[in-house]
Parts: sequence; structure tokens; C-alpha cells
Amino acid sequence: MARWEPDARERLVRAALDLFAEQGYDNTTVAQIAERAGLTKSTFFRHFPDKREVLAAGQDALCQLFEGGIAAAPASATPLEAVAAGLDAAAEAFTPERRDLGRKMQATIAASSELQERDTLKRVGLAAAITDALKIRGVPDPTASLAAEIGILALRTAHARWSDPTNRQELAVLARQSLHELQTASAALS
Amino acid sequence: MARWEPDARERLVRAALDLFAEQGYDNTTVAQIAERAGLTKSTFFRHFPDKREVLAAGQDALCQLFEGGIAAAPASATPLEAVAAGLDAAAEAFTPERRDLGRKMQATIAASSELQERDTLKRVGLAAAITDALKIRGVPDPTASLAAEIGILALRTAHARWSDPTNRQELAVLARQSLHELQTASAALS
Repeated sequence: MARWEPDARERLVRAALDLFAEQGYDNTTVAQIAERAGLTKSTFFRHFPDKREVLAAGQDALCQLFEGGIAAAPASATPLEAVAAGLDAAAEAFTPERRDLGRKMQATIAASSELQERDTLKRVGLAAAITDALKIRGVPDPTASLAAEIGILALRTAHARWSDPTNRQELAVLARQSLHELQTASAALS
Repeated sequence: MARWEPDARERLVRAALDLFAEQGYDNTTVAQIAERAGLTKSTFFRHFPDKREVLAAGQDALCQLFEGGIAAAPASATPLEAVAAGLDAAAEAFTPERRDLGRKMQATIAASSELQERDTLKRVGLAAAITDALKIRGVPDPTASLAAEIGILALRTAHARWSDPTNRQELAVLARQSLHELQTASAALS
């Protein structure tokens, strides 16, 4: 039996992203990923059903963090304040040591239309989850849907800036900044 | 050689949607669609590469109408006024005789996760096209992206109401109403 590998998941993600960058996503096998991580194939399959799921690593967790942040916002919070609380909570997933992972993941996704589609669907799923979390707080539609789209735009912009190697700001700071820009933009719409 | 069938495309769409509703999308073949429409399989393939594309019928046209409406808006138009002009132009695709088609199409899509994914990706593509059309007018980001998301939300809401058999309003009227609701919601965000 394989021994307990406390950081196996993170090592597998790092190995996979390195290999995707070096030789392409399509040319990379699960056996190669496991070998590069110094683990066995069966350890890989205890963490991921296939190599595609490596790229979704953390997306469900991100969704849960975002929803949790919204749920925990004070009852007096406006819809956008609740979204800001969600962004703060989600930002915890983007630790400094994961900054290079985000960059490699984006590069791999950008190189494949199949992975881009999957990424788009995940993003739309996150928007739906945020909308539902706001509705639970009593925010009606279309306010909830609009606030969710603003949250997604803020997260995307902040993530792109955070992944830029010349940027050293924390994601939480960048997300607040993007959200503020969107509030300003919202005032310039009509 | 097949003779010229001026309404072949519309007949194929109607036949396909009827069959999808009656016996399910997966159980319906191109041969059945052609037969129901009183046309040949080769006529079908002159209009669509496969049965899935029948459901995308009009989506590219919708995108072009929306972009054209934005481009034709007066130079003085605000971002949301340009989006309103795009919605007006897009609404032309939703003629009264197509109201039942929209309903059948939605029911077919709702019954299949594969078709839902495809529909979601088309919607995201439309949002990107609207954003680009606004940027060409000089609207900067994130205002352009935000206005595009509002346009999509307005169109989705209006389309759902328009597809409701108890509703007899025109899509253009419903879209203006949704856009107005979103403007009001936008003021209640923060």
C-alpha cells in the first residue's frame, strides 16, 4: 500500500503543470505526471479521475470559499459588500507560493480550446453559485445576478493581474481594487 | 439535383424541434428530421453540419444583429444606450411566429447537459462580441465588459418572458423593460 503523502495533491498539480508547459497537455500522460511528482499512478488516481481534473484543482474549493464569505457577511451588508466578503474569502486560495501555478495553469488552458471551454463553464458555474448565495441573503433578481457578474469580473481581472510576474500585490488587494473599478464603471454606464 | 426550397431552413428547424420534443434529442436522426420536413437528407446537410447545429440556428445571426445595433448607435450614446440599440436590433430575430420555436428550443436544451453547455458557451461568446463592439466605440474596460453582461442578462430575462405562452409582448419591449430593471438594480448594489 502507498504510504501517506501529505503534499501529494499539490506535488501532482505542480508536476502536471510543468509537463503541460514543457511538452503540451495532449502529449502528457498520467504516468509521466506521477513519475515527475515522485509518486505512483495509483496515488494520482486517488486524487484525480484524469489529467483534465488537475486543471480544475481548487475550483470547487474556490466556489465554496466564495459562498462561505458571502454567507458570513454581516446582515447589514449591501449586495456588493457581500460580494466583497466573498472575494476576500476566495482570495485565501491564492497564496503567494501558488502564484506561478496560476500562471502555468492559464498558459495551459489558453493553448487548448477544449480546456478553455471547460474553464468558461466553471466560471459560469461560479456565477450561478454566487447568485444563489446572494438570493439566500434575500437579494432579489436581477440584483443578485448582476452583483454575481460583477464579482466574477472582479475576480478575473484581479487574477490576471496577480498572475502577472511583475505584480507583487496580494490577490485580496487586487480584487478589492477591481471591485472598486467596477463600481466606478457602473456609475458611467448610463 | 434538389430544387430550390426557399423556406427549407426554417422547415428543418421546426421539424427537428418537434421531433426532439416528441421523442428526445438523442433518439432523433437527421433522416427523420428531413422526412418530417418533407425534404431530403442532402438538403439538411446543405443547411446544417449535424442535428446539434439546428439548435444553434440563428445564434450567429443574433450576434451579428446585436453588434450591428451597437455600431449604428449615435456617437453620443452612453454604453447602456448602445447596448439598448443592440437589443433593439437583436429583437428583430424574435418574430411572433418564432415564439413557439424559442419555447421548444429551450425545452430541448434544458433536457440535455451537453446542449446546456453548448448554449452557455454561445452565450459567453455573445458577451465577448458585445464587449468588443463597445470597445470599438471607445468604451474602456471594465465598463465595456460590465455593459455587455448587463445586455446578456437583459436578453436572457426578456427571452424567458417572451417564451412564456401567457406573455404576448414583443421581445424588444421586454428587453427594454429588463434593461431598465437592471439599471434600477445597479443603483441598489452598494
